[in-house]
Amino acid sequence: MSTTGTKIRELIVTPIAFRDPPLLNSGGVHEPLALRCVLQLRLEDGTVGLGESPGGAVRVERLAAAARAVVGLDVFDTTAVAAAIDAVLLPTVPSSHERGWTTSAVEVACLDAQGKLLGRPVSDLLGGRVRDRVPFAAYLFYKWGEHPALDGREAVGDDWGEALDPAGIVAQARLMQERYGFRSFKLKGGVFPPDEEIAAIRALAEAFPGQPLRLDPNTAWTVPTSRYVARELDGVLEYLEDPTATIAGMAEVAKDSPLPLATNMCVIAWEHLRPAVEQNAVQVLLTDHHYWGGLRRTRELAAVCEAFGITLSMHSNSHLGISLAAMTHVAAAIPNLDHSCDTHYPWNSADEIVRPGVLELRDGEVAVPTGPGLGVELDHDALDRLHRLYLESGMRGRDDSGYMRRVRPDYDPRLPRW
Amino acid sequence: MSTTGTKIRELIVTPIAFRDPPLLNSGGVHEPLALRCVLQLRLEDGTVGLGESPGGAVRVERLAAAARAVVGLDVFDTTAVAAAIDAVLLPTVPSSHERGWTTSAVEVACLDAQGKLLGRPVSDLLGGRVRDRVPFAAYLFYKWGEHPALDGREAVGDDWGEALDPAGIVAQARLMQERYGFRSFKLKGGVFPPDEEIAAIRALAEAFPGQPLRLDPNTAWTVPTSRYVARELDGVLEYLEDPTATIAGMAEVAKDSPLPLATNMCVIAWEHLRPAVEQNAVQVLLTDHHYWGGLRRTRELAAVCEAFGITLSMHSNSHLGISLAAMTHVAAAIPNLDHSCDTHYPWNSADEIVRPGVLELRDGEVAVPTGPGLGVELDHDALDRLHRLYLESGMRGRDDSGYMRRVRPDYDPRLPRW
Ligand SMILES: [Mg+2]
Ligand SMILES: [Mg+2]
Repeated sequence: MSTTGTKIRELIVTPIAFRDPPLLNSGGVHEPLALRCVLQLRLEDGTVGLGESPGGAVRVERLAAAARAVVGLDVFDTTAVAAAIDAVLLPTVPSSHERGWTTSAVEVACLDAQGKLLGRPVSDLLGGRVRDRVPFAAYLFYKWGEHPALDGREAVGDDWGEALDPAGIVAQARLMQERYGFRSFKLKGGVFPPDEEIAAIRALAEAFPGQPLRLDPNTAWTVPTSRYVARELDGVLEYLEDPTATIAGMAEVAKDSPLPLATNMCVIAWEHLRPAVEQNAVQVLLTDHHYWGGLRRTRELAAVCEAFGITLSMHSNSHLGISLAAMTHVAAAIPNLDHSCDTHYPWNSADEIVRPGVLELRDGEVAVPTGPGLGVELDHDALDRLHRLYLESGMRGRDDSGYMRRVRPDYDPRLPRW
Repeated sequence: MSTTGTKIRELIVTPIAFRDPPLLNSGGVHEPLALRCVLQLRLEDGTVGLGESPGGAVRVERLAAAARAVVGLDVFDTTAVAAAIDAVLLPTVPSSHERGWTTSAVEVACLDAQGKLLGRPVSDLLGGRVRDRVPFAAYLFYKWGEHPALDGREAVGDDWGEALDPAGIVAQARLMQERYGFRSFKLKGGVFPPDEEIAAIRALAEAFPGQPLRLDPNTAWTVPTSRYVARELDGVLEYLEDPTATIAGMAEVAKDSPLPLATNMCVIAWEHLRPAVEQNAVQVLLTDHHYWGGLRRTRELAAVCEAFGITLSMHSNSHLGISLAAMTHVAAAIPNLDHSCDTHYPWNSADEIVRPGVLELRDGEVAVPTGPGLGVELDHDALDRLHRLYLESGMRGRDDSGYMRRVRPDYDPRLPRW
């Protein structure tokens, strides 16, 4: 195969918005629209690689800077592409975690383009599939029945209904299982007092005996509260996720927690690994290729976790199919994927931007796409529609707390809450 | 590109022997012949991937077992290929490090075949080159002027001459620099009393001011001796390599060593990383794709080192061009290659088995091959000749101590010696 034509001609960044239900968390509530960016990396020979990243004005700006930095680089030089982007962002974005969101999205687009050029699925570029189907967990949320009427807009409901107590959560879990076949469940907590969330987990344990359960209050708790919940749910939870903030706080909890502690909040950049290991702060890492540097770096992170006895799960934000395909490819390639992966996909898949037929959540799993690259094709009409929705929304970023305060003016987002 | 034809049809393992000078080390002296294996991994479509590994009867047997295990697997499924080999070896080879020698050689052959199928150099499969030329260090040895007359064989000299004192080492270093342009130097120590080796390093420092120097006595010393040498050579050595045995021993030395400690002896498998980090035993890791699991695993190991503040260098055994090409590709792809790499190549390259024109040590560097795969071609005549040499030699394995005892019957190989 000739190597001409493999240089990057342009990176097209398209901000989009898509519908999101009123999902509650420790920081407030999901707004009616979630923001995301779609990347189209076009090579000299016309090959296009796809990527997807979180959206909002700041992310779009950084991706635009990345787009200027990568023109003319070879799509196979992903390490150099990441370094070029990193160098451009460094003066204004001191956090390596923050820069990682941008470099990661471009790396995925490069690997998609590579796979298309080579006629191989992305998983083959990562060492091949060690599983043909990737297991995901049902991502349960406390939620309102509808987005409230605001700004002259009518209230907007959905087909999931309200879930504000143990019975509501169990009903949501049953619906999730019915629709997608999930066999493990994660509850986003940090919304109600801990005893209510403990009750919800116990109700799930009763409704789904033997199926792995997790609880993630997004650092809503103090160290003593975290210890209390860990003791109460010993033998019930697979792991307890980010009960409290910081590596030091998690290490305090871990000292006498009978449950493994997981994180996607205190270990989110390469420089956090050493202190986390030294303090034995976490026993499970939820990796996320969207900020760890992309798919190859996620494979490397998995090797770190294996070497240091940390088990591996996967984190998700609200996302669409390009991200789901990338998550599935890398999860398929990692031998030590010890837990099912998180995904928001069921909450957002109605506004999908990739053509149907490849990605399907069935029996709680997604079959690894076998076509070249990520194996998904962009639906340009859907992309245009969601881009217009973004432009019309006037939204600049995600603000769960601000949205919550518009509905409940006395809402105080400060954590820890309990 | 079609995916038919990418299954492995056969793995041909050819044991070879090639000439090696009488290089001294803490375990004895190199025998007149060094053993190695050449791998030819043939796919259904006829594509052949090359690999190279240490030789000897035990290694040949394990590679033969691997050859049976990999037939029918897809060459892109390198993780699964490694797992299949590992599973076959596990019952009889309990050491993961030992199994790693076999899985690694096959992984390299797979990547060479992948690169040939895809028309891309192996470095592109590892994230692309971050450098076009890889720096190597001159590997200096105390040595005899010739292999002694034994077994009715005449004494065999070479064009390097004797080196048994500081002046001899400096002369060897000058010859190395003259012939290959090296700009950093490593002395294999553990041969003479420490003060003599300290004197040799000081002579090198005087002869090559400002050029990095290293000393590697292969665990010939006790902890107190190691500390003494580290203090004596503070400000003179770039790092001190394996002065004493075991992670615990190295940690003892590291506690008050003013020099960084390096290893390719006490951290040689993934399960050694955690204790080494916990005990802060080493500051430099000499990686070696021949036992860490291959080229992708070496990239992962580099990520571990980066995360835990361990700098990276590269280890070498006696080797020929397939190994040199593989070392060069992976070194080219690793951003945090902090030190020049080791190579025995100048001692053995007269018996090369790859066609000339691609690999050349110039200015102390090797240009990264840009052809498909490893970018080197097998010289089948040379391979046949070295295979016959192996058969005629009757050698079953490497025995530096036994060879030394035949020349000096009172030689005691037990370590630490000082
Ligand atoms: Mg979380
Ligand atoms: Mg060494």
